[in-house]
Amino acid sequence: MLITLTTDFGLKDPYQGAMKGAILSVNPEARVIDITHLVSPGDIIEGAFVLLESYGFFPDGTVHVAVVDPGVGGMRRPMLVETERFLFVGPDNGLFSLVLRNEKVKRVVQLTEEKYFRKEVSNTFHGRDVFGPVAAHLSLGVSPSAFGPEITDILEISLPKPSLEMGVITGEVIYIDSFGNIITNIDGGDALSFGVDAELELNGKGVEGLKRTYSEVTGGSALALISSSGFLEIAVNGGDAARLFNAQVGDKVLLRARG
Amino acid sequence: MLITLTTDFGLKDPYQGAMKGAILSVNPEARVIDITHLVSPGDIIEGAFVLLESYGFFPDGTVHVAVVDPGVGGMRRPMLVETERFLFVGPDNGLFSLVLRNEKVKRVVQLTEEKYFRKEVSNTFHGRDVFGPVAAHLSLGVSPSAFGPEITDILEISLPKPSLEMGVITGEVIYIDSFGNIITNIDGGDALSFGVDAELELNGKGVEGLKRTYSEVTGGSALALISSSGFLEIAVNGGDAARLFNAQVGDKVLLRARG
Amino acid sequence: MLITLTTDFGLKDPYQGAMKGAILSVNPEARVIDITHLVSPGDIIEGAFVLLESYGFFPDGTVHVAVVDPGVGGMRRPMLVETERFLFVGPDNGLFSLVLRNEKVKRVVQLTEEKYFRKEVSNTFHGRDVFGPVAAHLSLGVSPSAFGPEITDILEISLPKPSLEMGVITGEVIYIDSFGNIITNIDGGDALSFGVDAELELNGKGVEGLKRTYSEVTGGSALALISSSGFLEIAVNGGDAARLFNAQVGDKVLLRARG
Repeated sequence: MLITLTTDFGLKDPYQGAMKGAILSVNPEARVIDITHLVSPGDIIEGAFVLLESYGFFPDGTVHVAVVDPGVGGMRRPMLVETERFLFVGPDNGLFSLVLRNEKVKRVVQLTEEKYFRKEVSNTFHGRDVFGPVAAHLSLGVSPSAFGPEITDILEISLPKPSLEMGVITGEVIYIDSFGNIITNIDGGDALSFGVDAELELNGKGVEGLKRTYSEVTGGSALALISSSGFLEIAVNGGDAARLFNAQVGDKVLLRARG
Repeated sequence: MLITLTTDFGLKDPYQGAMKGAILSVNPEARVIDITHLVSPGDIIEGAFVLLESYGFFPDGTVHVAVVDPGVGGMRRPMLVETERFLFVGPDNGLFSLVLRNEKVKRVVQLTEEKYFRKEVSNTFHGRDVFGPVAAHLSLGVSPSAFGPEITDILEISLPKPSLEMGVITGEVIYIDSFGNIITNIDGGDALSFGVDAELELNGKGVEGLKRTYSEVTGGSALALISSSGFLEIAVNGGDAARLFNAQVGDKVLLRARG
Repeated sequence: MLITLTTDFGLKDPYQGAMKGAILSVNPEARVIDITHLVSPGDIIEGAFVLLESYGFFPDGTVHVAVVDPGVGGMRRPMLVETERFLFVGPDNGLFSLVLRNEKVKRVVQLTEEKYFRKEVSNTFHGRDVFGPVAAHLSLGVSPSAFGPEITDILEISLPKPSLEMGVITGEVIYIDSFGNIITNIDGGDALSFGVDAELELNGKGVEGLKRTYSEVTGGSALALISSSGFLEIAVNGGDAARLFNAQVGDKVLLRARG
């Protein structure tokens, strides 16, 4: 049974290793797959986005554990979510809310049954002591309803929405990847409806037209295209667009049809 | 059979991949789990600490391989250690000495039987050529005694010990994690015996009282608590304590009961 | 069945996780092993070198997928290569050409059969949409010839070759690892033929003699030795040679017999 991990634990510290140990101690046959442990510390929206762009490619029945949990040990509830295709385990702090908009939710359960936790539960490391063991028990076939009471009022966060005014879409940068590619919140299909010769503007610099691949422009040149995740993306062929555009998450992006 | 890896090989170079290949060439069914490959190069104490904080969460029978090995190819002996719960494989340079204080050691064996090594053994990469293959043979059920003669005089290193004088515990910083949390060598139980209103001092800055969770203080504020590993920890809710306290490994930490 | 991954996708973004999901969706039993995801973005030669130093340690039958693919979506062809020992899957852009010089190639197949791809193939992420799924189908036993027509004219890249003139070998730095060890393109056997007291020069600094292990010189001192991969290497015992020699990939290295 597959269990994926998406956390901000980093790769240098003992935390992700300890969490894997806790999972394998419950189910030695579990197959644990890292999505990432390098979410920026405490950045729930970034974690939600990384999960959104990866979870759906896994086979049905996968248990997705995500832990970006600045409120660990406080009031936020530990939970699991059962959908038609997957199980999700982690804190009720919005981390799953982008994903769940795509999924048919069957039930949400607050994790209260301590027999499925590690014997000693620390106040600061629920990945190891609560979420990992719960995922392992789920992978062994324990019914989601065994872990606690159903709840309905889970926390939701949203990506910012682009606005359309006077024929101009105003969106913003929502993610910058390790290549320096700039992902915006503008839907790829909406962008295409402005025509392949639409014009973009980011931080005072323009990009003309929508391309299909990086190599349609000469090396070092900027281009706009639809990202592999379906959002409008600004990139540089063989280069770092975030550096060229001096772009940061939150910067405004304008899209208009050619004049 | 589970084999964990704790090394300073990094994640960019071919080294950890080659080591996994060497393991899987001996036992294609071995399940190799990364604890970390990002121990600071050659830092045996850091490696020993990371291992201490993670190894015990794995199921009984796990083979833990650790390679932080600045003396590779020199006089330090390659060894395996069999304890009641686990097998450990790596250099006899102190890397396992924090762990072994917690474990019931059954025997220590110097690795001399070359038939369990890779055919060609380099002078600089025993992770791939000695420790990995030995771990793989152990995971296949080869008896620990088959790998060489028993030895008893293995190298030990110690974490620095806190001192108690005039009602003040003087400890020090032993680890700083990727969140900037500061782990000290002061035992959590000892700290609690000073009362939950005990006072800490680190680099001229004070922290008042022991909390249970990060969220008991307002965002951006410092707090002290017992870490998930049982040591006294200094943290900042939603922030980076190492930066706030300008802390480095080795800095002194004072703990006193409220006056 | 083992599938290894060597990419420049990074470890922070959702890309390598999505690729693993796409593989496991085709073959849930596939065992996916990371060689690295930290090849410098778009650096085909570095990727080819990392693959060269790791692929051969895996057991026969392993499927090696490598994706350093700045031309994704453009004219470069997707391909698989079947050799006596392994299967390789990735772009035909030179990434496999160092490896293939060591291997007996049985056939090269252009990937054209879309039924082995993901249903929707993006223009920018063939790791997830083409190479991962093809590797997974190979791991299920699909014949290499099923994926498309045989081709013969694949792209080759070469490491620079050292030159020998007036009794001096002039080579260059081809890789610097995370420890700061400097790997040159000078064959270890050739270097030894100059005698163990041969002299090296890099960026105006000299190193005398060839050692067998790091610990043959005092801590902090530079030495030359044969790397675990068989190339002449310059290192510093317990230190960072690249920093000491201010070395970069491409710098010239001179080797001469002792005068």
